[in-house]
Amino acid sequence: MVLDSGDTAWMLVAGSLVLLMIPALGLFESGLLRKKNAASIFMQIFFGLALLSVMWFVFGFSLSFGDSTMGLVGNMDWVFLKGVPSDAPLEQYAPTIPGVLFVKFQLMFAAITPLLLTGTIAERMKFSSFIIFISAWSMLIYYPLVHWVWGGGWLAQLGVVDFAGGIVIHTSVGMAALAAALVLGRRRHYGPAIMIPHSIPLAVLGSSLLWLGWFGFNAGSALSASGGVAGNTVIVTHMASSVSALIWAGLSWIRTGKPSVVATINGAIAGLAGITPASGFVSAEHAFVIGIAIGVISYSGVVLFKERLKIDDALDVSSVHGVAGIVGALAIGIFASTAINPGGVDGLLFGNPDQLWIQAVGVGVAAAMGFGGTWIILQVLKHLIGIRVSPEVEDVGLDISEHAESAYSDEEEFMLDMDDYTDELQEKDEILFKKKKDR
Amino acid sequence: MVLDSGDTAWMLVAGSLVLLMIPALGLFESGLLRKKNAASIFMQIFFGLALLSVMWFVFGFSLSFGDSTMGLVGNMDWVFLKGVPSDAPLEQYAPTIPGVLFVKFQLMFAAITPLLLTGTIAERMKFSSFIIFISAWSMLIYYPLVHWVWGGGWLAQLGVVDFAGGIVIHTSVGMAALAAALVLGRRRHYGPAIMIPHSIPLAVLGSSLLWLGWFGFNAGSALSASGGVAGNTVIVTHMASSVSALIWAGLSWIRTGKPSVVATINGAIAGLAGITPASGFVSAEHAFVIGIAIGVISYSGVVLFKERLKIDDALDVSSVHGVAGIVGALAIGIFASTAINPGGVDGLLFGNPDQLWIQAVGVGVAAAMGFGGTWIILQVLKHLIGIRVSPEVEDVGLDISEHAESAYSDEEEFMLDMDDYTDELQEKDEILFKKKKDR
Amino acid sequence: MVLDSGDTAWMLVAGSLVLLMIPALGLFESGLLRKKNAASIFMQIFFGLALLSVMWFVFGFSLSFGDSTMGLVGNMDWVFLKGVPSDAPLEQYAPTIPGVLFVKFQLMFAAITPLLLTGTIAERMKFSSFIIFISAWSMLIYYPLVHWVWGGGWLAQLGVVDFAGGIVIHTSVGMAALAAALVLGRRRHYGPAIMIPHSIPLAVLGSSLLWLGWFGFNAGSALSASGGVAGNTVIVTHMASSVSALIWAGLSWIRTGKPSVVATINGAIAGLAGITPASGFVSAEHAFVIGIAIGVISYSGVVLFKERLKIDDALDVSSVHGVAGIVGALAIGIFASTAINPGGVDGLLFGNPDQLWIQAVGVGVAAAMGFGGTWIILQVLKHLIGIRVSPEVEDVGLDISEHAESAYSDEEEFMLDMDDYTDELQEKDEILFKKKKDR
Repeated sequence: MVLDSGDTAWMLVAGSLVLLMIPALGLFESGLLRKKNAASIFMQIFFGLALLSVMWFVFGFSLSFGDSTMGLVGNMDWVFLKGVPSDAPLEQYAPTIPGVLFVKFQLMFAAITPLLLTGTIAERMKFSSFIIFISAWSMLIYYPLVHWVWGGGWLAQLGVVDFAGGIVIHTSVGMAALAAALVLGRRRHYGPAIMIPHSIPLAVLGSSLLWLGWFGFNAGSALSASGGVAGNTVIVTHMASSVSALIWAGLSWIRTGKPSVVATINGAIAGLAGITPASGFVSAEHAFVIGIAIGVISYSGVVLFKERLKIDDALDVSSVHGVAGIVGALAIGIFASTAINPGGVDGLLFGNPDQLWIQAVGVGVAAAMGFGGTWIILQVLKHLIGIRVSPEVEDVGLDISEHAESAYSDEEEFMLDMDDYTDELQEKDEILFKKKKDR
Repeated sequence: MVLDSGDTAWMLVAGSLVLLMIPALGLFESGLLRKKNAASIFMQIFFGLALLSVMWFVFGFSLSFGDSTMGLVGNMDWVFLKGVPSDAPLEQYAPTIPGVLFVKFQLMFAAITPLLLTGTIAERMKFSSFIIFISAWSMLIYYPLVHWVWGGGWLAQLGVVDFAGGIVIHTSVGMAALAAALVLGRRRHYGPAIMIPHSIPLAVLGSSLLWLGWFGFNAGSALSASGGVAGNTVIVTHMASSVSALIWAGLSWIRTGKPSVVATINGAIAGLAGITPASGFVSAEHAFVIGIAIGVISYSGVVLFKERLKIDDALDVSSVHGVAGIVGALAIGIFASTAINPGGVDGLLFGNPDQLWIQAVGVGVAAAMGFGGTWIILQVLKHLIGIRVSPEVEDVGLDISEHAESAYSDEEEFMLDMDDYTDELQEKDEILFKKKKDR
Repeated sequence: MVLDSGDTAWMLVAGSLVLLMIPALGLFESGLLRKKNAASIFMQIFFGLALLSVMWFVFGFSLSFGDSTMGLVGNMDWVFLKGVPSDAPLEQYAPTIPGVLFVKFQLMFAAITPLLLTGTIAERMKFSSFIIFISAWSMLIYYPLVHWVWGGGWLAQLGVVDFAGGIVIHTSVGMAALAAALVLGRRRHYGPAIMIPHSIPLAVLGSSLLWLGWFGFNAGSALSASGGVAGNTVIVTHMASSVSALIWAGLSWIRTGKPSVVATINGAIAGLAGITPASGFVSAEHAFVIGIAIGVISYSGVVLFKERLKIDDALDVSSVHGVAGIVGALAIGIFASTAINPGGVDGLLFGNPDQLWIQAVGVGVAAAMGFGGTWIILQVLKHLIGIRVSPEVEDVGLDISEHAESAYSDEEEFMLDMDDYTDELQEKDEILFKKKKDR
């Protein structure tokens, strides 16, 4: 097929919106954390974004979407994007947009997915270990899953479908979050007090930009603005998140007597994550039903994991992404309809009961990869270089100890710190100067 | 007509930009309010967004845009969006984009309109009453006005035009704001001190995202990227907001001796709101002139309502949206030209003096509906369940008392609150546990 | 050619994204400044945006893009956009989108360019002088450069190319920053202490929105979504910023022992600014190489200008924009390929060694105009009305003294200031009232 300017316009925007989701995730998380760790999460997010982008460009895209070797892994034909056309499409993936634009859209997915785990490991992981962790996670878990489901690998051949990532992304990350929380252990002083958000406006801002970006994430996965799929995806996506937000707000109201902002925005995110895999395959009506299921089950996930089992998945990635994503991925098996998306599948309600089991296989594989792979990576890292900061560092906060920065500084501190800081810098300058002379 | 990928691409984006305006409104307002109410406004905005979205999906769209019954109200054929196509357009409304995408774009208007009133009722309304208020407002005021002006109802038949909502949205909301402020009464300690914004960066951020989103709001109302209407709308929109911002900045400079950031961003918003109804019908030159009128008159509105009459419309919705929107809606009657928009009308300057009177009728009806309807709804609510929080709650702030949340929390408080909070939660857990056993 | 809905859709969005960059710049800068100046920067940004927008509309566009007089300056045919079509293209510039939409896209460039200098002159320039400064800068430096490079002027005739502004914008602004820093002089108490950011979340937010907006800035400069140029531009842009962010992060890690968030986001911005001129002409592979050069050289610029020479370019505009932009503008001469952009040029590696010298001429002219012009404007202003606030005002901060506003206010201050403030306002009301009676 030939490049289409409307499809290209939409994909230029959709990829940009998904880029926005990455810092938005950081803002959302930072707001929900304590002030002393409010900057460290940005470092994880920004460094991660840059690193994972480069990895995708160098070999990730090729390993994920290159021609399949036995359905297991892509090849190395597209390293450094060699051979990916800018003036022609990759016919097999997105036949009406430039090949490099498909790469860039998928790059954003490859960058955000491991970074969702920042919400789990927050406030206590060593930055150096974190970098190795997300690199390994990409190579050992994400690239294979992408290949298996979206790159023509064995799960795709089995018939598993996943419109925008409920299996590949949310299921794998959600279960990885559980493993990571268990291996890392609880934060010190674990209890409700350390979970009070330091800035609700920041969290609200982040969740708002996530909501916006998710239209790019889901409707961009149509890889085209032609026909009705992208249009249907936005109303479906919005409906699920609205319903889920109402349910979380309502449940928080019932349980505590006060409707909570934090619960409401988390509910919206759960709805967005949950509908992701199904968003291009179901009708708005069915999204309404699925949204109810997502809301109730993901909220219950938080009660189970955080309150009952006391697993310290700091920002509930296991429930908000994992449980929600599993619900949506299975919902495809029930509600999907080729009347909505001729390129999709039919579910149980439309005469194809097998799809539900096929979806369950996909979910099971992603969950096993996510949980098992993460467990192994972190255990290895733990024994090689350690994964957790010292108790003293944790008490002081990661911002100062890991990054020598403070999220918020005020005038008085400036004046007090001035002398020390100046001295220190002069000293450093001298050292550098000496080094230079030594050469 | 047939679906167009360029038009669809633009409308996918435009609808997303209007979604962004809703939390942006919250950020803008939160920044301008006091710290103790900075989170409550988010709850109103997010809960409202979710609720009004669901209402629109279930029956609002059908009542507003369904086939007309005597020009007064739509029918119920499209409840739950049954029968709204995703792979074909709704020919009568937007002939080149999927039907569901038109629904989604209009959904965002239906969600943001009643939520503009959060700026008026801020810092003193009960959350429970607020929910009922915006639901009733939608059904009794917004849906009818949409039907009358955009859904082929009697005002449309009369010849009233409104490109993106100056009558349907800004006039009705602006006059509703006056009614709401009068029924609710002034905040305690009313005076300049309670109007000092707690965070100018937050307000600036919100206004910036509103400015961005407004391009989607106005140029999206072209419902197409074909031809020149959408392109003209963005330059027109930008010109009016720039001029109005300069005028507010200048007037604040003259009146107080110092140019004010808060005045400048309010001026930009007034310009955006004011040009909305005319944005698709006039030239950039005329937008320049209209922008001057909007700036001067809306600023005078604030002086009149807030300073002279001491009406506590907390964030000046009556002036920034209402007065501005009325100026723009009437300006259509003077400056509109079918040379700019062949599907539009001509105004006074282009040989059609009648249009001005027709527009005045539209404005009058929307103003009456907005003011009268709001007065009645709030009086009924006041007598049934009360609309205002107690003076104690107002002094403590809505965040803590209505939502048990605090916009900003710091480390020390964490530690102090820790024990209490933990006890409380355990207690709650026990209660829940008991409840379970009882079943 | 005829208007294309896909191209128009993309340019509607691209122009909106560049609008967003303007307040994003303000948020980024505000976060990096001290709290007492955190609001003043917004006033500069918003007032500047509005003023420069109006100037562009009234005469700037015509002077820049109007028919050339001897390759030096445009004409006045398009003042107030008279004669610029909304339903047809300006064939010579953007043949598939409405003429007014091209004006609006370029308007955003005209607004953001002088405002980049807010990062240099922050915390010490008089607001009134600032307004005159950016107006003069636009007329004497920016409009001519645009005409020479993009409007068919003498540099364009010489063969200089600049895809999205590395010469016209970043080189000229970067060298202007050096001149402005020298003429204005250092801030009081110059040293590391005054450079501690008051809010990293704000700075991160701003840089995130800048990153997002830059896709519109660069890929929008393709002025079309047809073919592969826009698609290639986004991956190129993203790659350069990722690589540069990694390099800044790494260098900060090596130099201080701790990886810095502030360095990382500055590195991303440097990568974005640096790749701008080359973004539409080179491949992703070459962007990777260019990104390395940008990162290393722009970081070195900061060390040189700020640490060695102690030039107080407050937020390093000279390095992050200037040095980076020069690297990218020269890189065109090496890496550009007509295989990537048939409408572009070939560089050294593709058999055209002359292009490098041609680019160097463009860079030299822009640097001379930027540095020299700024020096002259500021010297004139300095002697006429003064450019710097008094030391007392600088110590108190610009927010209170220049704008009577405070970025953050809390409850207690409200109560304390209440009486004073009320008295003052009543006084003012009385004065106004008297004035009225006098008439």
